[in-house]
Amino acid sequence: MKGIYAKMEGMNENLEKMRHSLAHIMAAAVQKNWPAAQFGIGPAIENGFYYDIDFGKEKISESELKKIEKTMREIINAKQPFVRSEMSIDEAIDWAKTTKQSYKVELLEDLKNKGTTSVKEEDFVDGVNEVSFYQLGDFKDLCRGPHLENSGQVGAFKLMQVSGAYWRGNEKNPMMQRIYGVAFETKEGLAEYLELLAEAKKRDHRKLGKELDLFTFSDLVGAGLPMFTPRGTILRDKLAEYSVDLRKNAGFELVWTPHITKTELYKTSGHWDKFGEELFLVQSKVSGDQFALKPMNCPHHTQIFASRPHTYREMPVRYMEVTTDYRDEKTGELGGLTRVRSLTQDDSHVFCRKEQIKDEIRNLVDVVKNLYETVGLHELRARLSYCDGSDKYLGEKQVWAFAQEQIREVAAENGLDFFEAEGEAAFYGPKIDFMARDAIGREHQVATIQLDFVMPGRFGLEFVNEKGEKETPVMIHHATLGSIERFLSVFIEHTAGRFPVWCAPEQVRLILVKNDDEKLIKFAEKLHEQLSSAGIRAELDDSGDSVGKKIRSAETKKLPYSVVLGEKELAGGKLLLRIRADLGEGAELTAQELVERIADESQNRTR
Amino acid sequence: MKGIYAKMEGMNENLEKMRHSLAHIMAAAVQKNWPAAQFGIGPAIENGFYYDIDFGKEKISESELKKIEKTMREIINAKQPFVRSEMSIDEAIDWAKTTKQSYKVELLEDLKNKGTTSVKEEDFVDGVNEVSFYQLGDFKDLCRGPHLENSGQVGAFKLMQVSGAYWRGNEKNPMMQRIYGVAFETKEGLAEYLELLAEAKKRDHRKLGKELDLFTFSDLVGAGLPMFTPRGTILRDKLAEYSVDLRKNAGFELVWTPHITKTELYKTSGHWDKFGEELFLVQSKVSGDQFALKPMNCPHHTQIFASRPHTYREMPVRYMEVTTDYRDEKTGELGGLTRVRSLTQDDSHVFCRKEQIKDEIRNLVDVVKNLYETVGLHELRARLSYCDGSDKYLGEKQVWAFAQEQIREVAAENGLDFFEAEGEAAFYGPKIDFMARDAIGREHQVATIQLDFVMPGRFGLEFVNEKGEKETPVMIHHATLGSIERFLSVFIEHTAGRFPVWCAPEQVRLILVKNDDEKLIKFAEKLHEQLSSAGIRAELDDSGDSVGKKIRSAETKKLPYSVVLGEKELAGGKLLLRIRADLGEGAELTAQELVERIADESQNRTR
Repeated sequence: MKGIYAKMEGMNENLEKMRHSLAHIMAAAVQKNWPAAQFGIGPAIENGFYYDIDFGKEKISESELKKIEKTMREIINAKQPFVRSEMSIDEAIDWAKTTKQSYKVELLEDLKNKGTTSVKEEDFVDGVNEVSFYQLGDFKDLCRGPHLENSGQVGAFKLMQVSGAYWRGNEKNPMMQRIYGVAFETKEGLAEYLELLAEAKKRDHRKLGKELDLFTFSDLVGAGLPMFTPRGTILRDKLAEYSVDLRKNAGFELVWTPHITKTELYKTSGHWDKFGEELFLVQSKVSGDQFALKPMNCPHHTQIFASRPHTYREMPVRYMEVTTDYRDEKTGELGGLTRVRSLTQDDSHVFCRKEQIKDEIRNLVDVVKNLYETVGLHELRARLSYCDGSDKYLGEKQVWAFAQEQIREVAAENGLDFFEAEGEAAFYGPKIDFMARDAIGREHQVATIQLDFVMPGRFGLEFVNEKGEKETPVMIHHATLGSIERFLSVFIEHTAGRFPVWCAPEQVRLILVKNDDEKLIKFAEKLHEQLSSAGIRAELDDSGDSVGKKIRSAETKKLPYSVVLGEKELAGGKLLLRIRADLGEGAELTAQELVERIADESQNRTR
Repeated sequence: MKGIYAKMEGMNENLEKMRHSLAHIMAAAVQKNWPAAQFGIGPAIENGFYYDIDFGKEKISESELKKIEKTMREIINAKQPFVRSEMSIDEAIDWAKTTKQSYKVELLEDLKNKGTTSVKEEDFVDGVNEVSFYQLGDFKDLCRGPHLENSGQVGAFKLMQVSGAYWRGNEKNPMMQRIYGVAFETKEGLAEYLELLAEAKKRDHRKLGKELDLFTFSDLVGAGLPMFTPRGTILRDKLAEYSVDLRKNAGFELVWTPHITKTELYKTSGHWDKFGEELFLVQSKVSGDQFALKPMNCPHHTQIFASRPHTYREMPVRYMEVTTDYRDEKTGELGGLTRVRSLTQDDSHVFCRKEQIKDEIRNLVDVVKNLYETVGLHELRARLSYCDGSDKYLGEKQVWAFAQEQIREVAAENGLDFFEAEGEAAFYGPKIDFMARDAIGREHQVATIQLDFVMPGRFGLEFVNEKGEKETPVMIHHATLGSIERFLSVFIEHTAGRFPVWCAPEQVRLILVKNDDEKLIKFAEKLHEQLSSAGIRAELDDSGDSVGKKIRSAETKKLPYSVVLGEKELAGGKLLLRIRADLGEGAELTAQELVERIADESQNRTR
């Protein structure tokens, strides 16, 4: 369900009260049915609420959600009041022990000893010496509130799911059961949300990845390491090619770097300390060197910059590379591209003078706007991330102030929908993070532009200025698509697999009405050859299936175009182009017109 | 010097005698000047001879080669006879002990105890109980012979080099000094060879790599891990693109696989046992899985094939990928591309039926012939590697016989210059290895086509045949360029950096006569823009240098074309195209003609 809550952003206070009250109502209902249940924490979340509950040896399944929901509705119909009370911590601990709520005992003892519970989601403390409770019928819970006046005031809700959850998120702790519910102020709001959920499920890129034969996983290769089939590879390559084309026009030059390096590179860059567990270490039996798989490309690129002297006349120097980085992620979402261990980045690095920062950022903002406009992720927002007053930021203050001013000006002058966030900068420089909204309203973080005042100095990079003096360049890090795998997960769901013509793995399918007509087969093969030589990705369906089945097969694969070839076409009639609904109406055209149309759409990426 | 001996192939018996006799003459000269020197082995090699010598604490340097050469010439002028004698092994051991030749003692004792010396280069045994000696003046050496009659019969020679060499190639043994000489039957032969050597030195790809700014190494990244600059990346990418284009036309589809895998993949494929030390192991702190960097791509590709069911109608399935493999090579030739740890392969795998083997091999032979013809490595030879009677080959005998017959037929029908080698097949199937001769006569192993009857079974690959039965496909492994890095090392030296137009990093340079003429600058920029929009790699030299210096700079970079722009051109005159000597004469043409010419040459790879 993660991610389906962009529209719910800025949850209002009343809705939060409703969701939190529903968590209590659910807990009360559970207690009624399973009196021995022990309760962990039960917060409001972005689309509803949950409660972590220990059912003892008994485990409940999703079939029991109905029973809980039924009891909840009884409590709601009874319009029971939420009654607040207070106790000292010691009294509260006594209460928790008496009622055998061991998780609450633990929370309260932590609070007493450390002044904190380290449970972020819950906020039940009023002061350190006094805690508050809310009572709902027979159910009493440690809670800061606030709550609704009574249980009758909750809006529309639905219990969704039961899953396992370690107490306090720590795998060494007992496994509890987390019951999720969604909740909205109105029935319409809930219905709309459930519809979105159903739509999201249909669009799930893991499901579409299989149906459209785009990528696969293998137990022998390992989790988080997708392999791309011919169709998926075309999609990847076309997106990467576009990102390269845009950046080539913006003055970037491709470079190539290996996927491993001696760890000395990261000790110099500073990443060694930062990356820790995520870094894959590589063991050499032959050499005494310690190697690592690269988790990013900037340090490698500095070494190409450093490979020969530079003068001010050459600045800015702009490198780009499409290359795969490796990060040892915990593979949370198996089988998908959202979180993978092999991340292919369309990475860019600019080495420039301070005075060139603004032009270079503008250059990159244009690349980002162009790309996201073309792929149909129109609603771009930008977060300008600045430093705050703290001393965790490296580099001179006036350089920061200057750079942030430049970023703000570019954002304003380019009509970006932006907001500013102090304290969100990287320690090495301010940045712009872009967010894009997909077809079903979810917002995803996508491209980034980051200034860096630190790394060039660490690697001793320099160029000779007009006065013959050595000067340290500024670096700008940029990714347009970001990780291609992650971008694909967004793009597949955004388009629901209905890819634009220019990047569709198969652009047009030729469907034969008869499979035993030699003349028709020759005619189809000639057309296929004509399309292929123009670089168009066409396939010929000359299988033994019926025409109806062939057409349905082309529809299932969500192909942009298909053409049925029969007597009429063979006799010289125009071709009837079947067009996927989102691309418009069908059309009649000659073979030459068909070739020109698709070639033009591909080249100019108009569709 | 390695590799400069292709022309010397099939060294005749007399030349071999000359070279081996020269090794003895050199040893005699060394003994005269350094009486305490101890001798290891001294064989004839493909372009001359060497002797491994232990000079004790004293180490000699190349400046002392003159002295040795002088003594050698005295021995040669004296026309001393080579006198053969025989001894029992025990007598020989006594002789070696008396003369303090401890390496010879070791060889003889090995021979006595094990019946072999494990020194491949030397072959001084007549029988197990008797060994032969050759005496030359005061110098007597254990040796099987044969030798010339006397030292006056040697041809032309030159001592070249002293380098360190571990006794018997084992780094745990003492380090000796190896003195190399080259030798030919005639003075002309030697002169020609030395000229070739000088030419090879000028063409050294490590030197040109720097001069033409193609690739670089960094101590922080590590040995054997080249990084490619913008110019080098264009060269790489253009070659890879061509290999992909050819294979696309041959029905191959691009796939994408990650650079790491669980080691289970190689345990299943059988590579785990085979690869051993060369395999880079990858350590995960997060997961319990053991990973490795891929040293080849076939096992990954089997997993894409296995990701969905296949029928006979789809066969053959043809995958290709340009991807980087990692092998933990001992980095012998530092700073070069000949032997690297990051090998980018243009790898292909065909999954086909037995009856399709011949067509598929023919298909790939065409790809190979096309590519090597275009890159100018014309003289292709093919070695057809078959199994022999031994039982080390897996798979059914009749399948082998059938496949070898197919390979032979394709080679004959396609007019390949081929020879057959029994016992040279891989254990999993027969293969074709291609050798190409470069511009200075050296032969390099390049493309390969390998049949594989084993791996598909190990991975349980299958397709459904016409009868509805499951059938195991045959795999064909193919690399066209092979390792792109290694290919580049050959290609850079073959062309001496004078790259063809279609893959030249910079195709044309525009040189301004004056740098302060606004109109001229505008004119040049317009032409530059016209060239760039046509995809032509053009650069504008508007530096402050003189025209002469600018022209020399373009020549140093070995650019195919340059155009000097001055008053005449600005006034509407035709452009005078300066053309690199190997590409022909200069030409006068309009801007439009220039664009069309280069665009056409690039697209059709005619130059």
